[in-house]
Amino acid sequence: MVSTDMLNNNLKIVFEEIKQLIGGRFTTSIGIRETHGRDESYHEAFLPDAVAFVNSTEEVSSILKICYQYSIPVIPFGAGTSLEGHIAAVRGGISIDLSNLNNIIQVNFEDLDCRVMAGVTRNQLNNYLRDQGLFFPIDPGANATLGGMVATRASGTTAVKYGTMKDNVLSLKVVLADGRVIETSKRARKSSAGYDLTRLFVGSEGTLGVITEITIKLFGIPETKSVASCVFPNIENAINSVIEVIQLGVPIARIEFADEVQIEAINKFEGSSYDVLPTLWIEFHGSENSVKEQSEIVHKITEAYKGSSFKWTSKLEEYNKLWKARHNAAYAAVALRPGCGIWATDVCVPISKLADCILETKKQIQNSTIPAPIVGHVGDGNFHVCFVVDPKNSAEISEVKKINEDLVFRAIEMDGTCTGEHGIGYGKVEYLLKEHGDITVDVMKSIKFSLDPKNIMNPGKIFRN
Amino acid sequence: MVSTDMLNNNLKIVFEEIKQLIGGRFTTSIGIRETHGRDESYHEAFLPDAVAFVNSTEEVSSILKICYQYSIPVIPFGAGTSLEGHIAAVRGGISIDLSNLNNIIQVNFEDLDCRVMAGVTRNQLNNYLRDQGLFFPIDPGANATLGGMVATRASGTTAVKYGTMKDNVLSLKVVLADGRVIETSKRARKSSAGYDLTRLFVGSEGTLGVITEITIKLFGIPETKSVASCVFPNIENAINSVIEVIQLGVPIARIEFADEVQIEAINKFEGSSYDVLPTLWIEFHGSENSVKEQSEIVHKITEAYKGSSFKWTSKLEEYNKLWKARHNAAYAAVALRPGCGIWATDVCVPISKLADCILETKKQIQNSTIPAPIVGHVGDGNFHVCFVVDPKNSAEISEVKKINEDLVFRAIEMDGTCTGEHGIGYGKVEYLLKEHGDITVDVMKSIKFSLDPKNIMNPGKIFRN
Repeated sequence: MVSTDMLNNNLKIVFEEIKQLIGGRFTTSIGIRETHGRDESYHEAFLPDAVAFVNSTEEVSSILKICYQYSIPVIPFGAGTSLEGHIAAVRGGISIDLSNLNNIIQVNFEDLDCRVMAGVTRNQLNNYLRDQGLFFPIDPGANATLGGMVATRASGTTAVKYGTMKDNVLSLKVVLADGRVIETSKRARKSSAGYDLTRLFVGSEGTLGVITEITIKLFGIPETKSVASCVFPNIENAINSVIEVIQLGVPIARIEFADEVQIEAINKFEGSSYDVLPTLWIEFHGSENSVKEQSEIVHKITEAYKGSSFKWTSKLEEYNKLWKARHNAAYAAVALRPGCGIWATDVCVPISKLADCILETKKQIQNSTIPAPIVGHVGDGNFHVCFVVDPKNSAEISEVKKINEDLVFRAIEMDGTCTGEHGIGYGKVEYLLKEHGDITVDVMKSIKFSLDPKNIMNPGKIFRN
Repeated sequence: MVSTDMLNNNLKIVFEEIKQLIGGRFTTSIGIRETHGRDESYHEAFLPDAVAFVNSTEEVSSILKICYQYSIPVIPFGAGTSLEGHIAAVRGGISIDLSNLNNIIQVNFEDLDCRVMAGVTRNQLNNYLRDQGLFFPIDPGANATLGGMVATRASGTTAVKYGTMKDNVLSLKVVLADGRVIETSKRARKSSAGYDLTRLFVGSEGTLGVITEITIKLFGIPETKSVASCVFPNIENAINSVIEVIQLGVPIARIEFADEVQIEAINKFEGSSYDVLPTLWIEFHGSENSVKEQSEIVHKITEAYKGSSFKWTSKLEEYNKLWKARHNAAYAAVALRPGCGIWATDVCVPISKLADCILETKKQIQNSTIPAPIVGHVGDGNFHVCFVVDPKNSAEISEVKKINEDLVFRAIEMDGTCTGEHGIGYGKVEYLLKEHGDITVDVMKSIKFSLDPKNIMNPGKIFRN
């Protein structure tokens, strides 16, 4: 252990050395530290001691060498859209802001892949690709950086067809804790050459190194996109039709669920008049014939589960309207209680348990006065209860904490996970232990300390350590 | 370091302790040791000192505790179908034969997943699943055990649609070097809960622990399967049509290439009369309409690249005939030189480089007298040159070694990998270094030694260490 005095002294030295390296792009301004200490969640902010805006992998490497020498924590920062306090500087240290690393380095059209710097955002990339008829499908909602999406193993609405970040990264350039730089893989579509370091860094939340470049898979923009919506008399029927759609292998691109509370919130927010019932929104990608055939199959299945008001369209205007309603879900929820924030739960369970998991949770929510609409990426068994809480009301926070914890334990009991896509950050450290048990988490820690023996990389995340 | 004397003494103690544990299922019979020291490749055999046929995870754990205490190497053994000497006991030790762990533990029909013991073979599983309308798609050719397929990150002909083992494993039960037992994940379809230990063990080749149980994804047997075949005037045209098929997002289930040498060998072997030209075999999965539409698109594309003799069928008899020819490729190759064996190369490159890579390799092969047909999982950029060599002829072995090495370097130069699906074993240790560089391989070693500090788990594989 390094003493506090020595740490303060070390910090001064580190400040000086980094300043010499990047000049005015190193700052201790309180305003900038504040925007780097809190993500989009309800979690308490922890300000870094300073922020370094880096322009290259080499700069990241130099800064890490300095921080490693003096045992100063380093927290990689992308767009700050994480939801479990991932970027909070719980032990102080230097926030490395990667937003200047925003070049799209190379698009390999024939290979359907591209290489980007870690600070490129999802929207930036898709705007760039559109003219070439390509897109990157992973859509977590927020306009996150690709680096952040890799670090949290993000997914979202399209995972049912395109997988999560783990399925779409071919290779990473990573700066290790001691400043060494590695490339995790070549650009081949598959390889059996040694340990899968790519997948080890995907979801490592900045605790193993700083990701600076990313090679990802791309997809051709589908010839036709169409959407359908359908309402159900109850949640079981909605979920059972999802199970059947997936079992039949219908290659749906998205299948999203919203409960009646969420629909009511959207109606209020948009002035719309959707049926206030459990609802599915489904997207199809493919040729014109294929999307038509897919939607006909889905229509038949939903009818068998008493689904009604089935609407199907390939018209862009209606397509956009429907997904706008879905994307407005969170804003619509917040609008239920102006001035309040969202606490989004994130369990994911085997789909056979999904209806039970949602229903038991709803039963518990009914005794609460806190608004709690539910949306779900139900094709994967993942759903979010979006509690609209007053962060200053400690009784409310305790109440939601309890409901969230019960939900997490319920999901784990059902062979599910405490986090489908948001990650552990510092908000779910105890739940990670509950989910995996001590020995498995010890294995993770062994790996962590083999690569970062001084624990400078985003300490306090994933593990309390 | 433990001295040789001490090691011999330790080995005696370990023999006694394991015998007490599993009685007659522990053996030092030379015949059994011989079948456990050589895989299906040309690589030199190394016999284990003994073989333990285990019946449970608990037995594996007890044996590992003993071996760990006395620093005795442990080599997990499935079906022995690996191709880079993975199961050779290069440092002696105990081969743990997992073939008795052959129970299909649970099939979760609604969740499209199942849990099996590591010794269950691919064919065993698919025979079991057939009546339920389900299947496990990964097809490396050999009837490997699922445990072996996980350990080598296997793939094969269907990876273009269904991915590799890395994409299809949900969770693993693993016995660590010191005998501790972990479960890498829950059964949810996705999770962001900590490091991706599942993917770390997929492809770890027995060097991090013994995999004893596996939870994998399943798929519904498609409503319709159809196949097409097509020949091309040259290799570029064949590969360019593959690139276009993939770019258009046609969801082909397999797209396999064979060069004219391979076709000629098959004709000789089967008495068939396929056109002796670069050939593609393509499989489609889906509804009746969808497979028809897919094949029409593919037909048009192949025509644009001067493909001819396009044949398409959904008839089971013709389907089986075509894939039998593909599955006979290796036997047909061996039949070219009775008494000889196969040395299969395994590079994988970005698909834009595939035609160049194959053509440059063929140019080199033309100067050789060793038969060398080529087949490829070309949708992924992966191909095999199947050298039919006389393993006793050292000049031939040297010649193939040189051609293989040139091919590996060529692939790496093209941003590809030295092994698409066979793994490193002890045959490609130097190429792993060439591909990733020292620092990346050092990171792999750090992880290895953090989990297996005494280096008892399949030592000498992946790394020379």
